[in-house]
Amino acid sequence: MDASPSYRYEQLADLITSMIDNGALAPGARVPSVRALSEQHGVSISTALQTYRSLEDRGVLVARPQSGFYVASTQPGTFALPSTSRRSAKASTVSISGAVAALLEHSSNRAFMPFGCAVPDGELLESKRLDLALARAARRHGTRYNVYGPPQGEAILRSEIAKRAMRIGHVLSPDDVVVTSGCTEALMLALTTVTKPGDTIAVEAPTYMGLLHTLEMLGLKAFELPVDPIRGIDIDALAQLLETEQVAACALSSCFNNPLGSMMTEADKRALLAVLARYDVPLIEDDVYGDLHFGRERPKPFIALDGGANTIYCSSFSKSLAPGYRVGWIAAGARTRRVIERKLAFSLCGAVLPQIALGEFLASGAYDAHLRNVRRLFQENLAHMARAIEVSFPPETKMSRPTGGFVLWLELPKPFDSRALFDQAIEQGICFAPGDVFSASRRFRNCLRLSAGHGWNDHIADGVRHLGRLAHKILAS
Amino acid sequence: MDASPSYRYEQLADLITSMIDNGALAPGARVPSVRALSEQHGVSISTALQTYRSLEDRGVLVARPQSGFYVASTQPGTFALPSTSRRSAKASTVSISGAVAALLEHSSNRAFMPFGCAVPDGELLESKRLDLALARAARRHGTRYNVYGPPQGEAILRSEIAKRAMRIGHVLSPDDVVVTSGCTEALMLALTTVTKPGDTIAVEAPTYMGLLHTLEMLGLKAFELPVDPIRGIDIDALAQLLETEQVAACALSSCFNNPLGSMMTEADKRALLAVLARYDVPLIEDDVYGDLHFGRERPKPFIALDGGANTIYCSSFSKSLAPGYRVGWIAAGARTRRVIERKLAFSLCGAVLPQIALGEFLASGAYDAHLRNVRRLFQENLAHMARAIEVSFPPETKMSRPTGGFVLWLELPKPFDSRALFDQAIEQGICFAPGDVFSASRRFRNCLRLSAGHGWNDHIADGVRHLGRLAHKILAS
Repeated sequence: MDASPSYRYEQLADLITSMIDNGALAPGARVPSVRALSEQHGVSISTALQTYRSLEDRGVLVARPQSGFYVASTQPGTFALPSTSRRSAKASTVSISGAVAALLEHSSNRAFMPFGCAVPDGELLESKRLDLALARAARRHGTRYNVYGPPQGEAILRSEIAKRAMRIGHVLSPDDVVVTSGCTEALMLALTTVTKPGDTIAVEAPTYMGLLHTLEMLGLKAFELPVDPIRGIDIDALAQLLETEQVAACALSSCFNNPLGSMMTEADKRALLAVLARYDVPLIEDDVYGDLHFGRERPKPFIALDGGANTIYCSSFSKSLAPGYRVGWIAAGARTRRVIERKLAFSLCGAVLPQIALGEFLASGAYDAHLRNVRRLFQENLAHMARAIEVSFPPETKMSRPTGGFVLWLELPKPFDSRALFDQAIEQGICFAPGDVFSASRRFRNCLRLSAGHGWNDHIADGVRHLGRLAHKILAS
Repeated sequence: MDASPSYRYEQLADLITSMIDNGALAPGARVPSVRALSEQHGVSISTALQTYRSLEDRGVLVARPQSGFYVASTQPGTFALPSTSRRSAKASTVSISGAVAALLEHSSNRAFMPFGCAVPDGELLESKRLDLALARAARRHGTRYNVYGPPQGEAILRSEIAKRAMRIGHVLSPDDVVVTSGCTEALMLALTTVTKPGDTIAVEAPTYMGLLHTLEMLGLKAFELPVDPIRGIDIDALAQLLETEQVAACALSSCFNNPLGSMMTEADKRALLAVLARYDVPLIEDDVYGDLHFGRERPKPFIALDGGANTIYCSSFSKSLAPGYRVGWIAAGARTRRVIERKLAFSLCGAVLPQIALGEFLASGAYDAHLRNVRRLFQENLAHMARAIEVSFPPETKMSRPTGGFVLWLELPKPFDSRALFDQAIEQGICFAPGDVFSASRRFRNCLRLSAGHGWNDHIADGVRHLGRLAHKILAS
């Protein structure tokens, strides 16, 4: 690929991944030592180490101190990876609102097994410390904070968010941060800042249904880019698209595409940024899953790689700490003033006390320990769910291998109809997200997304297995 | 006026108002008894009573039990009313964002005298009971509520809002209510539901600057309607406009226009609705000041007069209870589903705990006593401020006579420049809102708005008098 220089360590990492996929390396097996790898493949020790570290970051290998690297036991053993999607032939007018609303209604119904909505369970998030900060602020300073806050957001929260930006490898000042009502408002503000109705936006296929819904309501069209289940967006396809089509912006996940779990390498991210810069197309990135990495290092979002020159960064605390608080943020660089104007015009400012509580929670230093805990929980939950899927779904099922976040993407042989599965599953009290809501052109009807954002137990495991049996029946019919 | 039938009681009320204005009836004086009025003017007892009741609702008269009606002592004694604005010759492209942002920055700076922003002071609002409800919900049920709420809003809050709708004379079910991030988001959702960029919206002149800013950011144009300082919109001018121009919607205050304080009579509101219905133009009404009436009865918003057939109702708790909570709502009748779609696409849902706290506060029945208290405070504050203005501003100053809310609108002889006054006042630590931010075509440069949404004391009184002296100097120069 011209646009995406492939490094030696990446080629080696791909080779080892395929050995694991075809069973040459079993889950739990020790891989050759760094020195042995270096000698076998004629690469430097540092390249060999980089190969293993990158596989560790992807969750493929696990490092054991004083011992070496092992194939992760949580690797799905038998199911193949989903296919890489095709690029769309033309921009799609999005029409998804009915499907999204219907899914949300089912997802929020606590009577159903909660595989539908990609939101962590409150029990699992253990937000007690944050809630107590809110209670304290309300009790002690309710009167002082009963005012319109600044449209940009409360200073203490912006300051803490800016401090944390160092962890993603990007320098932000509090003035660069605009607090929003979750990542949804951040994406809406970003889109209205750089586009006008009728414009076309390049998006991943599959992509987050909420993004598609926002595009629809803003009168924007979507051009769908092919996505590899491990490496993410096909940069050549993007370059070809920009060569031939007028694209107003590109809107992508920073890390762990929802629903596919793919993550671009840093080199690929840089190559993608170079392509966008060549055509002067701004990038809007959604990093809500970035803090939920299973690998050693927090993967860098795009903004850390281009210094924010052409990137608008959107994120929130909804996937990792506080979905009920509705606090997100946006870092828009030179476009910050225009974003604040829109925040002011569209919702004036955010609720003050939840921002104060979040600011104090972050300032206490409690967030990092919290993140370590939820990362471990999500990784375990995904491993449990993957195993339950492998023993209950048809063997032809393909399954994603996310290295962060808490969703799995399943692909069944066409013409499997996940809508038919959905109707039957709902009757049995099980909710999940059918694949077609993840595409502007309503592709992926043979796919589905399952969320593992809740504690794992026998009841939940039974739900997954029941869904697998239903999938068997539909596939056989 | 064809479109606005003038009733006998309204003619009589106008006559009595003009007698007060020209000094024939002094503040505190007893007006003729209902029987005497009936005999003098050859009207029925019920018409005479209706005359006095309508004057009481406007704050012109005060009823004393067992005694009769008196000219309100808080009536400004000497200053004339502001002029009725002219209709604009054509639709204006709005360009106000810079001015609004600059004003907001000054208004939120606590170092300045707080006459700039139309938001009540937290001390005055005494939201303790609400804050404790929030603290309790966070402490006891934080985990349960740490979820995405329904896009439409929490059920307990929608139910309480629907119950309160009876007080405005309109029947709503909880399903008719969509909770928003303050009235700003409600207006934005209403506008995006019934318009597209490039459309023209009919607005009052002067009108709320935030509405103009939202129009600008949505790419909407504004057509400005003449507004009488007492009776509100000139319905004939609206009818003429709709006859000749394509107007996508009309966006008005329900009661107590901000900044002018005008309020249309129920008969005029019905006539306006009839004109809009004739041309099939939807009405978007902003009722944030409606609960802050000084008269006996809560004035009816438009939605109560057309049953919501053609009206989208927007309001919030920001002016009366909780500016810091950012909770508003919208009732959009047949357009409710489309409004929810937009809420979902633009901000997903609101923060859960503040909604729960507000729902519990309303359910406790505490809001009515709270409203009685803040109404009295605002009325007293406005009376204090009006007196301070009358003794310190140039005698040519004209001043509004709001019968609700907490702002005063001052008009000085042209070419008085309220921007020059603003610059000098800011240097002296006094903030207010210059007139031109209340107009899409940046008229009213000789006007200013003062907010009295804070406790009255000597320091505040000094600020008003200081401003008056500055106005004297600028007028003389």
